[in-house]
Amino acid sequence: MTGDKIRLYLEHPLGEGQTLPLSQPQAHYLFGVMRLGPGDGLRVFNGRDGEWRAVVVEAGKRGGLLKADKQTAPQRDPPDLWLLFAPIKKARTDFIVEKATEMGAARIVPVQTDFTNSERIRQDRLQAHALEAAEQCGGTFVPEVATLTRLDRLLADWPEDRHLMFCDEALVGAAPTLPGDLGGVPWAVLIGPEGGFSEAERTRLRTHPLAHAISLGPRILRADTAAVAALTFWQLRCGDWG
Amino acid sequence: MTGDKIRLYLEHPLGEGQTLPLSQPQAHYLFGVMRLGPGDGLRVFNGRDGEWRAVVVEAGKRGGLLKADKQTAPQRDPPDLWLLFAPIKKARTDFIVEKATEMGAARIVPVQTDFTNSERIRQDRLQAHALEAAEQCGGTFVPEVATLTRLDRLLADWPEDRHLMFCDEALVGAAPTLPGDLGGVPWAVLIGPEGGFSEAERTRLRTHPLAHAISLGPRILRADTAAVAALTFWQLRCGDWG
Repeated sequence: MTGDKIRLYLEHPLGEGQTLPLSQPQAHYLFGVMRLGPGDGLRVFNGRDGEWRAVVVEAGKRGGLLKADKQTAPQRDPPDLWLLFAPIKKARTDFIVEKATEMGAARIVPVQTDFTNSERIRQDRLQAHALEAAEQCGGTFVPEVATLTRLDRLLADWPEDRHLMFCDEALVGAAPTLPGDLGGVPWAVLIGPEGGFSEAERTRLRTHPLAHAISLGPRILRADTAAVAALTFWQLRCGDWG
Repeated sequence: MTGDKIRLYLEHPLGEGQTLPLSQPQAHYLFGVMRLGPGDGLRVFNGRDGEWRAVVVEAGKRGGLLKADKQTAPQRDPPDLWLLFAPIKKARTDFIVEKATEMGAARIVPVQTDFTNSERIRQDRLQAHALEAAEQCGGTFVPEVATLTRLDRLLADWPEDRHLMFCDEALVGAAPTLPGDLGGVPWAVLIGPEGGFSEAERTRLRTHPLAHAISLGPRILRADTAAVAALTFWQLRCGDWG
Protein backbone atom coordinates (compact mmCIF):
# COMPACT_ATOMS: atom_id res chain seq x y z
CA MET A 1 0.00 0.00 0.00
CA THR A 2 0.99 3.61 -0.32
CA GLY A 3 1.38 5.45 2.93
CA ASP A 4 1.07 9.00 1.68
CA LYS A 5 -1.74 9.59 4.14
CA ILE A 6 0.33 8.25 7.04
CA ARG A 7 1.94 10.95 9.16
CA LEU A 8 4.70 10.15 11.62
CA TYR A 9 6.29 12.39 14.22
CA LEU A 10 10.01 11.83 14.78
CA GLU A 11 12.72 13.68 16.68
CA HIS A 12 15.33 13.63 13.93
CA PRO A 13 16.27 16.79 11.96
CA LEU A 14 14.62 16.84 8.51
CA GLY A 15 16.23 17.93 5.26
CA GLU A 16 16.57 16.77 1.67
CA GLY A 17 18.16 13.32 1.47
CA GLN A 18 18.34 13.05 5.25
CA THR A 19 18.47 9.47 6.56
CA LEU A 20 15.99 8.83 9.35
CA PRO A 21 16.50 5.87 11.71
CA LEU A 22 13.32 4.43 13.26
CA SER A 23 12.78 3.23 16.81
CA GLN A 24 11.25 -0.17 17.46
CA PRO A 25 7.72 1.19 18.17
CA GLN A 26 7.89 3.32 15.00
CA ALA A 27 9.00 0.32 12.94
CA HIS A 28 6.23 -1.79 14.45
CA TYR A 29 3.65 0.88 13.60
CA LEU A 30 4.81 1.47 10.03
CA PHE A 31 5.68 -2.08 8.97
CA GLY A 32 3.59 -4.24 11.33
CA VAL A 33 0.40 -2.21 11.67
CA MET A 34 0.32 -0.05 8.53
CA ARG A 35 2.03 -2.68 6.33
CA LEU A 36 4.46 -0.32 4.63
CA GLY A 37 7.52 -1.76 2.91
CA PRO A 38 10.64 -0.52 1.08
CA GLY A 39 9.79 2.10 -1.54
CA ASP A 40 6.55 3.21 0.13
CA GLY A 41 6.14 6.87 0.98
CA LEU A 42 4.77 8.63 4.04
CA ARG A 43 4.80 12.09 5.66
CA VAL A 44 7.03 12.94 8.58
CA PHE A 45 7.46 15.99 10.80
CA ASN A 46 9.50 16.84 13.88
CA GLY A 47 7.77 19.96 15.19
CA ARG A 48 10.45 22.28 13.79
CA ASP A 49 11.22 21.63 10.11
CA GLY A 50 7.77 21.44 8.52
CA GLU A 51 6.31 18.34 6.90
CA TRP A 52 8.37 16.13 4.57
CA ARG A 53 7.67 13.25 2.29
CA ALA A 54 9.89 10.30 3.21
CA VAL A 55 10.44 6.91 1.60
CA VAL A 56 11.04 3.59 3.35
CA VAL A 57 14.60 2.37 2.67
CA GLU A 58 14.85 -0.50 5.15
CA ALA A 59 11.98 -2.21 6.98
CA GLY A 60 12.73 -4.49 9.92
CA LYS A 61 10.92 -5.81 12.97
CA ARG A 62 13.11 -3.90 15.40
CA GLY A 63 13.91 -0.83 13.38
CA GLY A 64 14.20 0.60 9.94
CA LEU A 65 15.34 3.53 7.86
CA LEU A 66 13.51 6.29 6.04
CA LYS A 67 14.96 8.83 3.66
CA ALA A 68 13.52 12.37 3.53
CA ASP A 69 12.54 13.28 -0.03
CA LYS A 70 10.99 16.75 -0.29
CA GLN A 71 9.21 19.23 1.97
CA THR A 72 5.42 19.01 1.56
CA ALA A 73 4.40 21.77 3.99
CA PRO A 74 6.27 24.57 5.74
CA GLN A 75 6.64 24.63 9.51
CA ARG A 76 3.58 26.29 11.01
CA ASP A 77 3.66 27.23 14.67
CA PRO A 78 0.48 28.09 16.57
CA PRO A 79 0.01 31.42 18.36
CA ASP A 80 1.75 31.77 21.76
CA LEU A 81 -1.18 30.32 23.68
CA TRP A 82 -1.16 28.10 26.75
CA LEU A 83 -4.15 25.99 27.68
CA LEU A 84 -4.45 25.50 31.44
CA PHE A 85 -7.00 22.95 32.62
CA ALA A 86 -7.85 20.99 35.75
CA PRO A 87 -7.60 17.25 34.97
CA ILE A 88 -10.85 15.33 35.19
CA LYS A 89 -11.71 11.72 34.39
CA LYS A 90 -9.13 9.94 32.27
CA ALA A 91 -11.05 9.83 28.98
CA ARG A 92 -12.03 13.49 29.19
CA THR A 93 -8.51 14.57 30.14
CA ASP A 94 -7.16 12.70 27.09
CA PHE A 95 -9.81 14.38 25.04
CA ILE A 96 -8.86 17.89 26.23
CA VAL A 97 -5.22 17.28 25.30
CA GLU A 98 -6.21 16.00 21.86
CA LYS A 99 -8.58 18.91 21.24
CA ALA A 100 -6.12 21.54 22.51
CA THR A 101 -3.58 20.22 20.01
CA GLU A 102 -6.03 20.38 17.11
CA MET A 103 -7.22 23.83 18.17
CA GLY A 104 -3.67 25.19 18.14
CA ALA A 105 -2.52 25.54 21.74
CA ALA A 106 1.27 25.92 21.95
CA ARG A 107 1.57 24.54 25.49
CA ILE A 108 -0.79 22.48 27.63
CA VAL A 109 -0.58 22.86 31.41
CA PRO A 110 -2.59 20.58 33.72
CA VAL A 111 -3.30 22.56 36.88
CA GLN A 112 -4.26 21.43 40.32
CA THR A 113 -6.95 23.65 41.78
CA ASP A 114 -8.58 23.59 45.20
CA PHE A 115 -11.43 21.48 43.78
CA THR A 116 -9.41 19.26 41.40
CA ASN A 117 -10.03 15.60 42.19
CA SER A 118 -7.05 14.20 40.35
CA GLU A 119 -3.79 14.48 42.28
CA ARG A 120 -1.66 12.80 39.65
CA ILE A 121 -1.50 12.68 35.91
CA ARG A 122 0.57 10.58 33.56
CA GLN A 123 2.45 13.38 31.82
CA ASP A 124 4.17 11.00 29.40
CA ARG A 125 0.85 9.50 28.33
CA LEU A 126 -0.69 12.93 27.79
CA GLN A 127 2.36 14.02 25.77
CA ALA A 128 1.94 10.93 23.58
CA HIS A 129 -1.71 11.91 23.06
CA ALA A 130 -0.69 15.39 21.92
CA LEU A 131 1.78 13.86 19.51
CA GLU A 132 -0.81 11.48 18.06
CA ALA A 133 -3.31 14.32 17.70
CA ALA A 134 -0.73 16.35 15.75
CA GLU A 135 -0.10 13.35 13.48
CA GLN A 136 -3.85 13.05 12.87
CA CYS A 137 -4.76 16.69 12.33
CA GLY A 138 -2.04 17.45 9.80
CA GLY A 139 -0.21 19.85 12.07
CA THR A 140 3.55 20.36 12.06
CA PHE A 141 3.70 21.42 15.71
CA VAL A 142 3.39 19.32 18.87
CA PRO A 143 2.47 21.25 22.01
CA GLU A 144 4.46 20.50 25.15
CA VAL A 145 2.39 18.96 27.93
CA ALA A 146 3.70 20.27 31.25
CA THR A 147 3.63 18.39 34.53
CA LEU A 148 0.78 18.99 36.97
CA THR A 149 1.24 22.40 38.60
CA ARG A 150 -0.67 24.02 41.45
CA LEU A 151 -2.78 26.92 40.17
CA ASP A 152 -1.89 29.20 43.09
CA ARG A 153 1.84 28.72 42.47
CA LEU A 154 1.38 29.29 38.74
CA LEU A 155 -0.48 32.53 39.41
CA ALA A 156 2.05 33.68 42.02
CA ASP A 157 4.82 33.26 39.47
CA TRP A 158 2.85 34.44 36.43
CA PRO A 159 4.81 35.83 33.42
CA GLU A 160 4.45 39.61 33.41
CA ASP A 161 3.42 39.84 29.74
CA ARG A 162 1.00 36.90 29.44
CA HIS A 163 -2.72 37.65 29.40
CA LEU A 164 -5.06 35.11 30.97
CA MET A 165 -8.62 34.40 29.88
CA PHE A 166 -10.69 32.40 32.32
CA CYS A 167 -14.29 31.27 32.28
CA ASP A 168 -16.23 32.64 35.22
CA GLU A 169 -19.43 30.76 36.00
CA ALA A 170 -20.79 33.87 37.71
CA LEU A 171 -21.04 35.47 34.26
CA VAL A 172 -23.16 32.68 32.69
CA GLY A 173 -25.37 34.20 30.02
CA ALA A 174 -23.26 37.31 29.38
CA ALA A 175 -21.74 37.82 25.93
CA PRO A 176 -18.09 36.75 25.87
CA THR A 177 -15.87 39.76 25.25
CA LEU A 178 -12.20 40.63 25.53
CA PRO A 179 -10.88 44.18 25.65
CA GLY A 180 -9.37 45.94 22.61
CA ASP A 181 -6.72 44.48 20.37
CA LEU A 182 -4.94 41.74 22.25
CA GLY A 183 -3.80 39.64 19.31
CA GLY A 184 -0.10 38.93 18.84
CA VAL A 185 0.71 38.91 22.56
CA PRO A 186 1.26 35.88 24.84
CA TRP A 187 -1.96 34.40 26.23
CA ALA A 188 -3.27 31.60 28.36
CA VAL A 189 -6.80 30.18 28.51
CA LEU A 190 -7.78 28.63 31.85
CA ILE A 191 -10.58 26.05 32.13
CA GLY A 192 -11.65 25.48 35.72
CA PRO A 193 -12.54 22.16 37.33
CA GLU A 194 -16.08 20.77 37.06
CA GLY A 195 -16.68 21.79 40.68
CA GLY A 196 -15.76 25.39 39.84
CA PHE A 197 -13.06 27.56 41.36
CA SER A 198 -12.80 28.06 45.12
CA GLU A 199 -13.57 31.50 46.52
CA ALA A 200 -9.84 32.10 47.12
CA GLU A 201 -9.03 31.19 43.51
CA ARG A 202 -11.84 33.32 42.16
CA THR A 203 -10.65 36.34 44.14
CA ARG A 204 -7.09 35.76 43.02
CA LEU A 205 -8.15 35.51 39.38
CA ARG A 206 -10.47 38.51 39.50
CA THR A 207 -7.81 40.74 40.97
CA HIS A 208 -5.03 39.50 38.67
CA PRO A 209 -3.93 42.45 36.50
CA LEU A 210 -3.69 40.38 33.28
CA ALA A 211 -6.73 38.17 33.83
CA HIS A 212 -9.93 38.56 31.79
CA ALA A 213 -13.14 36.83 32.89
CA ILE A 214 -15.48 35.69 30.14
CA SER A 215 -18.71 33.75 29.87
CA LEU A 216 -19.33 30.87 27.47
CA GLY A 217 -23.02 31.34 26.77
CA PRO A 218 -26.17 30.70 28.76
CA ARG A 219 -25.69 26.95 29.34
CA ILE A 220 -23.24 25.31 31.71
CA LEU A 221 -20.57 23.46 29.73
CA ARG A 222 -18.58 20.44 30.87
CA ALA A 223 -14.85 21.10 31.13
CA ASP A 224 -14.00 19.36 27.86
CA THR A 225 -16.68 21.25 25.93
CA ALA A 226 -15.59 24.49 27.59
CA ALA A 227 -12.00 23.87 26.47
CA VAL A 228 -12.93 23.62 22.78
CA ALA A 229 -15.44 26.48 22.98
CA ALA A 230 -12.98 28.78 24.79
CA LEU A 231 -10.19 27.97 22.33
CA THR A 232 -12.56 28.66 19.41
CA PHE A 233 -13.55 32.01 20.89
CA TRP A 234 -9.92 32.90 21.58
CA GLN A 235 -8.72 31.84 18.11
CA LEU A 236 -11.48 33.91 16.48
CA ARG A 237 -10.79 36.93 18.65
CA CYS A 238 -7.00 36.94 19.20
CA GLY A 239 -5.53 33.95 17.35
CA ASP A 240 -4.87 32.69 13.85
CA TRP A 241 -8.46 32.17 12.69
CA GLY A 242 -9.01 35.85 12.00
CA MET B 1 -28.31 12.88 51.50
CA THR B 2 -29.83 15.90 49.89
CA GLY B 3 -30.34 15.61 46.16
CA ASP B 4 -30.59 19.27 45.28
CA LYS B 5 -27.79 18.82 42.77
CA ILE B 6 -29.51 15.84 41.15
CA ARG B 7 -31.43 16.69 38.00
CA LEU B 8 -33.92 14.29 36.46
CA TYR B 9 -35.72 14.51 33.15
CA LEU B 10 -39.28 13.19 33.15
CA GLU B 11 -42.17 13.32 30.69
CA HIS B 12 -44.85 14.37 33.15
CA PRO B 13 -46.33 17.91 33.16
CA LEU B 14 -44.86 20.05 35.94
CA GLY B 15 -46.75 22.47 38.18
CA GLU B 16 -47.07 23.39 41.83
CA GLY B 17 -48.13 20.43 43.95
CA GLN B 18 -48.11 18.12 40.92
CA THR B 19 -47.65 14.43 41.75
CA LEU B 20 -44.97 12.76 39.63
CA PRO B 21 -44.94 8.95 39.29
CA LEU B 22 -41.52 7.40 38.61
CA SER B 23 -40.65 4.58 36.25
CA GLN B 24 -38.60 1.62 37.47
CA PRO B 25 -35.29 2.92 35.97
CA GLN B 26 -35.90 6.36 37.48
CA ALA B 27 -36.64 4.83 40.89
CA HIS B 28 -33.52 2.68 40.62
CA TYR B 29 -31.40 5.73 39.79
CA LEU B 30 -32.80 7.97 42.54
CA PHE B 31 -33.17 5.47 45.38
CA GLY B 32 -30.69 2.72 44.48
CA VAL B 33 -27.83 4.69 42.96
CA MET B 34 -28.20 8.19 44.42
CA ARG B 35 -29.60 6.95 47.76
CA LEU B 36 -32.43 9.46 48.03
CA GLY B 37 -35.32 8.74 50.38
CA PRO B 38 -38.67 10.28 51.40
CA GLY B 39 -38.32 14.00 52.16
CA ASP B 40 -35.22 14.48 50.00
CA GLY B 41 -35.31 17.11 47.28
CA LEU B 42 -34.08 17.13 43.69
CA ARG B 43 -34.55 19.11 40.46
CA VAL B 44 -36.78 17.90 37.65
CA PHE B 45 -37.56 19.16 34.14
CA ASN B 46 -39.58 17.90 31.19
CA GLY B 47 -38.28 20.03 28.33
CA ARG B 48 -41.34 22.32 28.38
CA ASP B 49 -42.16 23.65 31.85
CA GLY B 50 -38.79 24.86 33.13
CA GLU B 51 -36.94 23.38 36.11
CA TRP B 52 -38.72 22.52 39.36
CA ARG B 53 -37.71 21.44 42.80
CA ALA B 54 -39.43 18.20 43.72
CA VAL B 55 -39.53 16.19 46.93
CA VAL B 56 -39.57 12.41 47.28
CA VAL B 57 -42.92 11.24 48.68
CA GLU B 58 -42.63 7.50 48.16
CA ALA B 59 -39.47 5.51 47.39
CA GLY B 60 -39.77 1.90 46.19
CA LYS B 61 -37.65 -0.57 44.27
CA ARG B 62 -39.97 -0.62 41.29
CA GLY B 63 -41.31 2.90 41.36
CA GLY B 64 -41.97 5.90 43.50
CA LEU B 65 -43.61 9.27 43.72
CA LEU B 66 -42.30 12.81 43.68
CA LYS B 67 -44.20 15.99 44.39
CA ALA B 68 -43.32 19.18 42.53
CA ASP B 69 -42.62 22.00 44.96
CA LYS B 70 -41.61 25.26 43.24
CA GLN B 71 -40.15 26.36 39.91
CA THR B 72 -36.40 26.96 40.20
CA ALA B 73 -35.70 28.08 36.61
CA PRO B 74 -37.91 29.18 33.72
CA GLN B 75 -38.12 27.14 30.52
CA ARG B 76 -35.28 28.14 28.24
CA ASP B 77 -35.34 26.94 24.65
CA PRO B 78 -32.24 27.12 22.44
CA PRO B 79 -32.21 28.98 19.12
CA ASP B 80 -33.82 27.18 16.15
CA LEU B 81 -30.62 25.39 15.18
CA TRP B 82 -30.16 21.89 13.79
CA LEU B 83 -26.85 20.10 14.01
CA LEU B 84 -26.30 17.73 11.09
CA PHE B 85 -23.35 15.35 11.37
CA ALA B 86 -22.08 12.17 9.75
CA PRO B 87 -21.81 9.45 12.44
CA ILE B 88 -18.30 8.22 13.15
CA LYS B 89 -16.95 5.78 15.72
CA LYS B 90 -19.32 5.07 18.59
CA ALA B 91 -17.55 7.02 21.34
CA ARG B 92 -17.11 10.10 19.13
CA THR B 93 -20.72 9.96 17.91
CA ASP B 94 -21.90 9.84 21.53
CA PHE B 95 -19.63 12.73 22.23
CA ILE B 96 -21.04 14.86 19.40
CA VAL B 97 -24.59 14.32 20.66
CA GLU B 98 -23.56 15.24 24.21
CA LYS B 99 -21.70 18.36 23.05
CA ALA B 100 -24.47 19.49 20.67
CA THR B 101 -26.89 19.34 23.60
CA GLU B 102 -24.60 21.41 25.84
CA MET B 103 -23.91 23.88 23.05
CA GLY B 104 -27.63 24.49 22.49
CA ALA B 105 -28.66 22.68 19.32
CA ALA B 106 -32.44 22.30 19.11
CA ARG B 107 -32.38 19.22 16.88
CA ILE B 108 -29.64 16.70 16.09
CA VAL B 109 -29.74 14.96 12.72
CA PRO B 110 -27.30 12.12 11.94
CA VAL B 111 -26.75 12.18 8.17
CA GLN B 112 -25.49 9.51 5.83
CA THR B 113 -23.09 10.99 3.30
CA ASP B 114 -21.32 9.34 0.39
CA PHE B 115 -18.26 8.79 2.60
CA THR B 116 -20.02 7.93 5.89
CA ASN B 117 -18.83 4.56 7.17
CA SER B 118 -21.62 3.95 9.61
CA GLU B 119 -24.81 2.66 7.97
CA ARG B 120 -26.75 2.37 11.18
CA ILE B 121 -27.08 4.26 14.40
CA ARG B 122 -28.96 3.46 17.59
CA GLN B 123 -31.28 6.44 17.60
CA ASP B 124 -32.74 5.51 21.01
CA ARG B 125 -29.28 5.33 22.57
CA LEU B 126 -28.29 8.70 21.13
CA GLN B 127 -31.56 10.23 22.35
CA ALA B 128 -30.78 8.90 25.85
CA HIS B 129 -27.35 10.55 25.59
CA ALA B 130 -28.92 13.89 24.72
CA LEU B 131 -31.23 13.56 27.69
CA GLU B 132 -28.38 12.74 30.06
CA ALA B 133 -26.36 15.68 28.73
CA ALA B 134 -29.30 18.02 29.40
CA GLU B 135 -29.57 16.66 32.95
CA GLN B 136 -25.85 17.30 33.46
CA CYS B 137 -25.53 20.74 31.92
CA GLY B 138 -28.43 22.35 33.76
CA GLY B 139 -30.51 22.83 30.63
CA THR B 140 -34.29 22.69 30.54
CA PHE B 141 -34.45 21.58 26.90
CA VAL B 142 -33.67 18.19 25.36
CA PRO B 143 -32.92 18.23 21.62
CA GLU B 144 -34.64 15.63 19.48
CA VAL B 145 -32.22 13.16 17.88
CA ALA B 146 -33.57 12.27 14.44
CA THR B 147 -33.09 8.94 12.69
CA LEU B 148 -30.24 8.56 10.19
CA THR B 149 -31.14 10.44 7.00
CA ARG B 150 -29.38 10.54 3.65
CA LEU B 151 -27.78 13.94 3.07
CA ASP B 152 -28.88 14.13 -0.58
CA ARG B 153 -32.52 13.52 0.38
CA LEU B 154 -32.31 16.04 3.17
CA LEU B 155 -30.93 18.66 0.79
CA ALA B 156 -33.48 17.81 -1.92
CA ASP B 157 -36.28 18.44 0.56
CA TRP B 158 -34.66 21.35 2.41
CA PRO B 159 -36.94 23.82 4.28
CA GLU B 160 -37.13 27.02 2.24
CA ASP B 161 -36.33 29.34 5.16
CA ARG B 162 -33.50 27.43 6.89
CA HIS B 163 -29.95 28.63 6.36
CA LEU B 164 -27.18 26.03 6.30
CA MET B 165 -23.61 26.57 7.45
CA PHE B 166 -21.14 23.90 6.36
CA CYS B 167 -17.42 23.54 6.85
CA ASP B 168 -15.58 23.38 3.56
CA GLU B 169 -12.11 21.89 3.77
CA ALA B 170 -11.15 23.75 0.59
CA LEU B 171 -11.31 26.97 2.64
CA VAL B 172 -8.87 25.82 5.36
CA GLY B 173 -7.04 28.84 6.68
CA ALA B 174 -9.61 31.46 5.63
CA ALA B 175 -11.33 33.51 8.33
CA PRO B 176 -14.78 32.09 9.12
CA THR B 177 -17.46 34.60 8.13
CA LEU B 178 -21.20 34.62 7.59
CA PRO B 179 -23.06 37.31 5.65
CA GLY B 180 -24.93 40.17 7.35
CA ASP B 181 -27.43 39.75 10.14
CA LEU B 182 -28.69 36.19 10.08
CA GLY B 183 -29.63 35.85 13.74
CA GLY B 184 -33.20 34.97 14.67
CA VAL B 185 -33.83 32.83 11.58
CA PRO B 186 -33.81 29.01 11.32
CA TRP B 187 -30.36 27.53 10.81
CA ALA B 188 -28.52 24.25 10.46
CA VAL B 189 -24.82 23.52 10.94
CA LEU B 190 -23.47 20.59 8.93
CA ILE B 191 -20.32 18.73 9.94
CA GLY B 192 -19.00 16.48 7.20
CA PRO B 193 -17.56 13.00 7.58
CA GLU B 194 -13.86 12.52 8.41
CA GLY B 195 -13.25 11.52 4.78
CA GLY B 196 -14.74 14.82 3.60
CA PHE B 197 -17.67 15.37 1.26
CA SER B 198 -17.83 13.73 -2.16
CA GLU B 199 -17.54 15.95 -5.23
CA ALA B 200 -21.28 15.55 -5.89
CA GLU B 201 -22.11 16.61 -2.34
CA ARG B 202 -19.70 19.53 -2.44
CA THR B 203 -21.27 20.80 -5.69
CA ARG B 204 -24.74 20.39 -4.30
CA LEU B 205 -23.80 22.30 -1.13
CA ARG B 206 -21.95 25.07 -2.94
CA THR B 207 -24.87 25.73 -5.27
CA HIS B 208 -27.52 25.53 -2.56
CA PRO B 209 -29.13 28.97 -2.24
CA LEU B 210 -29.22 28.95 1.58
CA ALA B 211 -25.85 27.29 2.17
CA HIS B 212 -22.86 29.19 3.54
CA ALA B 213 -19.37 27.66 3.38
CA ILE B 214 -17.01 28.53 6.23
CA SER B 215 -13.55 27.55 7.36
CA LEU B 216 -12.61 26.54 10.90
CA GLY B 217 -9.07 27.86 11.06
CA PRO B 218 -5.77 26.73 9.60
CA ARG B 219 -5.65 23.25 11.15
CA ILE B 220 -7.72 20.22 10.15
CA LEU B 221 -10.16 19.37 12.93
CA ARG B 222 -11.63 15.97 13.67
CA ALA B 223 -15.41 15.79 13.26
CA ASP B 224 -16.13 15.97 17.00
CA THR B 225 -13.85 18.99 17.48
CA ALA B 226 -15.34 20.62 14.38
CA ALA B 227 -18.84 20.17 15.82
CA VAL B 228 -18.04 22.08 19.02
CA ALA B 229 -15.98 24.74 17.20
CA ALA B 230 -18.68 25.30 14.55
CA LEU B 231 -21.42 25.52 17.18
CA THR B 232 -19.31 28.01 19.16
CA PHE B 233 -18.78 30.16 16.06
CA TRP B 234 -22.48 30.00 15.17
CA GLN B 235 -23.64 30.79 18.71
CA LEU B 236 -21.30 33.79 18.86
CA ARG B 237 -22.36 35.04 15.44
CA CYS B 238 -26.07 34.16 15.14
CA GLY B 239 -27.15 32.45 18.36
CA ASP B 240 -27.79 33.21 22.00
CA TRP B 241 -24.21 33.93 23.12
CA GLY B 242 -24.25 37.45 21.73
